[in-house]
Amino acid sequence: MSGFSFEILSQDPGSRARTGRLTTPHGTVNTPAFIFCATKAATRVATAQQLRDLGTEIILSNTYHLMLQPGSEHVEKRGGLQEFTGWRAPMLTDSGGFQIFSLGHGLVADEIKGRGARSNNKTLQKITEEGATFKSYRDGSTHTLTPEKAITVQQQLGADLILVLDECTPFHVDKAYTEKSMQLSHRWALRSLKQFQATDTGKQALYGIVQGGVYEDLRAEAGAFIASQPFFGQAVGGSLGADAPQMDAVVGYAMKNLDMKKPTHLLGIGGIRDIWTQVAFGIDSFDCVHPTRLARHGGALYYNKRERLNLRNARYAHDDRPLIEGDGCPTCQQHSRAYLHHLVRAGEPLGYLLLALHNIAFMNKLMRDVRAAIESGQFAAHQRAALLRLEDDTDD
Amino acid sequence: MSGFSFEILSQDPGSRARTGRLTTPHGTVNTPAFIFCATKAATRVATAQQLRDLGTEIILSNTYHLMLQPGSEHVEKRGGLQEFTGWRAPMLTDSGGFQIFSLGHGLVADEIKGRGARSNNKTLQKITEEGATFKSYRDGSTHTLTPEKAITVQQQLGADLILVLDECTPFHVDKAYTEKSMQLSHRWALRSLKQFQATDTGKQALYGIVQGGVYEDLRAEAGAFIASQPFFGQAVGGSLGADAPQMDAVVGYAMKNLDMKKPTHLLGIGGIRDIWTQVAFGIDSFDCVHPTRLARHGGALYYNKRERLNLRNARYAHDDRPLIEGDGCPTCQQHSRAYLHHLVRAGEPLGYLLLALHNIAFMNKLMRDVRAAIESGQFAAHQRAALLRLEDDTDD
Repeated sequence: MSGFSFEILSQDPGSRARTGRLTTPHGTVNTPAFIFCATKAATRVATAQQLRDLGTEIILSNTYHLMLQPGSEHVEKRGGLQEFTGWRAPMLTDSGGFQIFSLGHGLVADEIKGRGARSNNKTLQKITEEGATFKSYRDGSTHTLTPEKAITVQQQLGADLILVLDECTPFHVDKAYTEKSMQLSHRWALRSLKQFQATDTGKQALYGIVQGGVYEDLRAEAGAFIASQPFFGQAVGGSLGADAPQMDAVVGYAMKNLDMKKPTHLLGIGGIRDIWTQVAFGIDSFDCVHPTRLARHGGALYYNKRERLNLRNARYAHDDRPLIEGDGCPTCQQHSRAYLHHLVRAGEPLGYLLLALHNIAFMNKLMRDVRAAIESGQFAAHQRAALLRLEDDTDD
Repeated sequence: MSGFSFEILSQDPGSRARTGRLTTPHGTVNTPAFIFCATKAATRVATAQQLRDLGTEIILSNTYHLMLQPGSEHVEKRGGLQEFTGWRAPMLTDSGGFQIFSLGHGLVADEIKGRGARSNNKTLQKITEEGATFKSYRDGSTHTLTPEKAITVQQQLGADLILVLDECTPFHVDKAYTEKSMQLSHRWALRSLKQFQATDTGKQALYGIVQGGVYEDLRAEAGAFIASQPFFGQAVGGSLGADAPQMDAVVGYAMKNLDMKKPTHLLGIGGIRDIWTQVAFGIDSFDCVHPTRLARHGGALYYNKRERLNLRNARYAHDDRPLIEGDGCPTCQQHSRAYLHHLVRAGEPLGYLLLALHNIAFMNKLMRDVRAAIESGQFAAHQRAALLRLEDDTDD
């Protein structure tokens, strides 16, 4: 891990919020940072150059998708993800576990977030001590992902930051199952770490993951366990509860025993409120498909109660204003809400691109604002003002 | 038409090929020019800024689509197409006729190009002396487009260059029908012109359209008729035959009696061979959905026999080269064929965007090369070299 370091640059006196600099062989990331999802080695529609132009410093790809298409060996032969995608800047990959379990259990992603169970094709075949066996969503072929294989695959993909394999339990499971699952995840974490250490070439850094569901004692135990191991970074994963207050509580439990010298990632969270709230627990990075997925559904990030404008809404047909008055993003500088409304209604892919550019710029500005707030020494006041703007119940 | 002019800057001594400067209230277009299709007020995926960055000078939108969604009055209220789209540079609209007839007859576009009839929903209700009545492809509502209305709608849309309403006959109709249709188109052209002159505010310029199918005498008659009227520009439309030699012949017939002081447009043509060939007849501008549609189907423009690389082809999975070695386009500068292949296979919209950016840059470079060839005084030699490159039967 010679090419890696994490420096804390400023510390909020009133909370655990801090700014930092995460150095990787592919460049530096200012924290707190937002990591955009390039699931299949592409953020769906924005080019690598557009991401850079909008101030993006780090993106992630999903091991599960890439191991099935085009295959991790293939990406390795193409020079790894950074070269393959043309991104050539810091990247993270997850272990593949989240997708195996979320697709396998029937959209666990929704369950983890407390939105209740939904039906879906069950592709997860079995979970054993050895690993997880699942069917490919593409061709039905059977694959087994073990902690060791998750490391090997991520080494082939070549992202800077990689994650241990863990079991992601759904929201609805009981405490007994959650505890059993957490213990399994801990054994898998140790196997992941051992495999990583045996093959480490200094080009990647490994994050452990804190599980334990919504249970305070399990989260505390998991946090202490992850902190006790020589991971470069630490992540909070799994179910964070049913609503915002529970999410805040669970993140608090998970953070309690972590090693605050290490870079700390919160998996799968990217709301405006959530970010302003959870950096105060010491979270250094976030990831979420939300900004780009919201764009695909005609939504623009905005400071209001819903944290978005829905451009499909007929009210925007005659609205010649930009999404945000005075915003520096390329979409707001050149295009009106009325035009975006037309594009979304007409099903033009350009609407999706322009909204994605806005949302990516919005998240990067949000993180700059968060960092500036921490650096100012007045984080609490800035946080309060930001959360107050989110009380606005109007849609413009 | 105070804001409009067309200057011929250089004339090839061996053919009718010439370079020119077409001035409009929204800016200047260097000719020969290629006009990209922004059918529904968007080139599907590239932003206005990306189009500008790639050297694009003019785009077109389709009256038929925009009158149905979002409506021409709506676009007028938004400040016209240039303001509505954020393009703010020269634009052309067609009269709406082509789509009414092509959708109405069952994909006449294919028939016009000699690809035979295909079945489709027939939305064209009737053609009378008054105009054409058709059903909306969106909601089945009935609309009538008359020559006068085609002008009014295009005035509301506000493009710089607008077209008369004409009847586009399918490829398979006989000479008697073609002649009857041409005469109707001429009466419609006069009514379009009259309506235009009665309402002209100097912000738009009108093109007449030469019809007459594949018949030499009809094309000659139509050319003489259009040349005899005070149109700002002249366009060649309708069926150009079944193959390249017939297309070249028909364009030749149509051009014979035209007024070569006027800017001359060839409707719906955009092949590399076609452009190198037809500028020699004096064509000053072309339009075609081909560059962006090809991208949507995984194709990259290329100098070979098929005029494209098909990125879906498995051969590109391991090809780390750019689409074109040394190409200045943003796609070739940053991304490999292997990555584009992955994106196309994975159905990522980014693949479509990156191919569209390549194809747009390719067309703009093609037109720069054509203009430079004419200006060099050695057009024939450059044309020969270009057509020779198109003999290459390999796919890379």
